[in-house]
Amino acid sequence: MNDILHYLQGELPRINAFLDAEADKLDPIVQPAVKHVLRAGGKRLRPLLTVLTARAFETQADIYPLACSLELLHSATLLHDDILDAAELRRGQETAHLAFGKGSTILAGDVLLALANRLVAEYGLPRLTLVLSEAIMRTATGEVKEIANVRNTALTHDEYMEIITGKTAYLFQAAAECGAILSGRGPEAEQAAHDYGLNLGIAFQLVDDALDYVSPSDVMGKHSGGDLREGKMTLPFISYIKSLDEALRSELLARFTADAFTDEDIQRIAAEVVAGGHAQTTRDAARHFADEARKALSAFPENAETDLMAAILDFVISREK
Amino acid sequence: MNDILHYLQGELPRINAFLDAEADKLDPIVQPAVKHVLRAGGKRLRPLLTVLTARAFETQADIYPLACSLELLHSATLLHDDILDAAELRRGQETAHLAFGKGSTILAGDVLLALANRLVAEYGLPRLTLVLSEAIMRTATGEVKEIANVRNTALTHDEYMEIITGKTAYLFQAAAECGAILSGRGPEAEQAAHDYGLNLGIAFQLVDDALDYVSPSDVMGKHSGGDLREGKMTLPFISYIKSLDEALRSELLARFTADAFTDEDIQRIAAEVVAGGHAQTTRDAARHFADEARKALSAFPENAETDLMAAILDFVISREK
Repeated sequence: MNDILHYLQGELPRINAFLDAEADKLDPIVQPAVKHVLRAGGKRLRPLLTVLTARAFETQADIYPLACSLELLHSATLLHDDILDAAELRRGQETAHLAFGKGSTILAGDVLLALANRLVAEYGLPRLTLVLSEAIMRTATGEVKEIANVRNTALTHDEYMEIITGKTAYLFQAAAECGAILSGRGPEAEQAAHDYGLNLGIAFQLVDDALDYVSPSDVMGKHSGGDLREGKMTLPFISYIKSLDEALRSELLARFTADAFTDEDIQRIAAEVVAGGHAQTTRDAARHFADEARKALSAFPENAETDLMAAILDFVISREK
Repeated sequence: MNDILHYLQGELPRINAFLDAEADKLDPIVQPAVKHVLRAGGKRLRPLLTVLTARAFETQADIYPLACSLELLHSATLLHDDILDAAELRRGQETAHLAFGKGSTILAGDVLLALANRLVAEYGLPRLTLVLSEAIMRTATGEVKEIANVRNTALTHDEYMEIITGKTAYLFQAAAECGAILSGRGPEAEQAAHDYGLNLGIAFQLVDDALDYVSPSDVMGKHSGGDLREGKMTLPFISYIKSLDEALRSELLARFTADAFTDEDIQRIAAEVVAGGHAQTTRDAARHFADEARKALSAFPENAETDLMAAILDFVISREK
C-alpha cells in the first residue's frame, strides 16, 4: 500500500499537469465543464494502469498522452452518466450538468471523447484507437443495460456480471492493453495486459458494489444503500434476496419494483445484507477475479511495476472506501 | 440536379445497406435508438461527400466504411443535439430521447461516436482519425457556443459565422478531406478537399438559416421562424434588426431577450425579414462561400465526380427546402 502511494505521489502530478495543459488548450467556452470534471479529485486509476503496464513492458515512447486519454474517456463517461443518473453530487461537488446545464455537459463529454481519440491517433498506431473505441462502445452498452434493468427483479447473476463488466471492466482492460500495445512487445504481452485489466476491473466494481452496502455515509461521501435506493440490482442484494423465504422475498421485491422503500427500509435492508454476509460474498467473488488478474501477471517481466500491479490487486479487494 | 439525383440513387442503397449492417451488429439493447436515428430519412450528404471526393481522386480502397463513419458521427451529434434543444420532432418523427429516454439516447450517441472511430481505425491511417476527432471537437464546441449565445442580442456577425462554421462546416470539411486522405494523393489534394468541404458546409448552413425564415411549415416539416422562436440569432435576423431604426430595434430586442414573442409576432417578423430581403442577403452570403468551394475544385482531377461536386454547389445555394 505504501509502495502504491509512493508511486502515485510521483505519477499524479505528471498526469494532472498533462490533463491541465490539454484542458487549457480547449476553446474557453468548453473549459469550465471540462475542468470541473477533470479537477474533481479522481483517483486516476485508469491512466495509472496504462503507465504501469507500459513501464512493466519497458516502453520507450512518451506514455502520458496515451495514459491521460484514458482519464479523458473516463471523465467523458462521468459527465454523461451523471446526467442519466440525475446525480446531484460527485465526490462531494455539484455535478457538471447542474453547474453548467445538460446541453453544455453532454457536449463537453463529446469534446473529451474526441480529444482522447485525437491524442491517441497522434501515436500513429491504429490498434490503440481500435482497442479504445471498442472499449467505449462496450462501456456505453453496459450503461444502457444497467438503465434498462433498473428495478428489474428478474435480473440474473450472469446479467449482473455482464453489466458490471460492461460499465467498468472494459475501460480498465483497454487501459492496460493500450500500455502493452505501446510497448511493441507483441500479442502475448497484449493478451496478458488485457486479462489483467479486465479481471481487475470486474474485481474493482464488485468491491464497489459491496462497499455501497457497507460504508457509512462519511466514508463514501454518499449514503449507504445508494444502489438499492436507485433500484440497481447488485450482487449483495441479489445474494440477500435469495436467502429470504418465498413470502418475504415476494413482498420485498414488490416494494423494490414499486420504488416504495422508505429511508428506514433502506437502512434496515442494508444492515441485513451486511449481517447476512452478502457484502462479504461479493468481496469473495472479487477475490476470484483478482486471482485471475494475478495469473495474467505471470506473463509480465519481473520488475518493480509488475510487483506494484500485484499489490494493486490486494489493495482493490481489501479497500474500505 | 438530375445528375445528382441519379448518382444518389446509385449510392444511397449501398450507404444505407452498410449502415443497416453495422447497426445490426450492435448489442440488441442499443439498436432501437441507433436505428431510429439512422433510418429517419437523412439526406446522407456527408457520406456522399466522402464518396465523391474519394472517387474524384480515384481512390482504390473500399470507401463505404469511411463514408458511413461520417453519417454515424453526424447521427451521434443529432441524438445529442435533440436532447439539448429539447426537440420533439426530427424529420416529422418523434425524437429518440422522447421515444427511448435521455439516458439511453446519450449513450447511443456515444456508441455511434465510438463505432465511427473503430471503423476508421480499421483503415490503418491515423490521419483519418486525427481529422475526424478534430472535427468532432470543433462541432461540439460550436454547439456549446450556439447554446451559450441563445437570446444574446450582442452576437456579432463574426461570432455567428464562427458558430455555424463550428456546428456544421467542420464535419463537411472532414467528410471531404478524409476522402482525399484515403486516395493517397497527398497534401495538395487534401487541402483542396478541405477547402471545398469547409466552404460548402458554411454555404449549406447559411441557406438553412435563410430557409428557416422562408419556408412555410409544410416544406421544412417545421414552422417558419423556428430559429427566432428558439432565440437563435442567425444572419437573416441580424441583418433585419440592423435595418430597423434605433427605437424599434431596442424594443424588439428587449422582447427577443425576454422570450416574449407571440406566435403572431414570429410570423410577422419572419414575413418582414423576407420582405426586407434579409433571407436573400443570407443566400447571397452563401453564394460567396459556394464560389470559394468552386475555386478549390480547380485542384481536383477533371472527371464526372468533380463535375457533380460543382453541381452540388449550385444545388445547395438554390435549394428551396
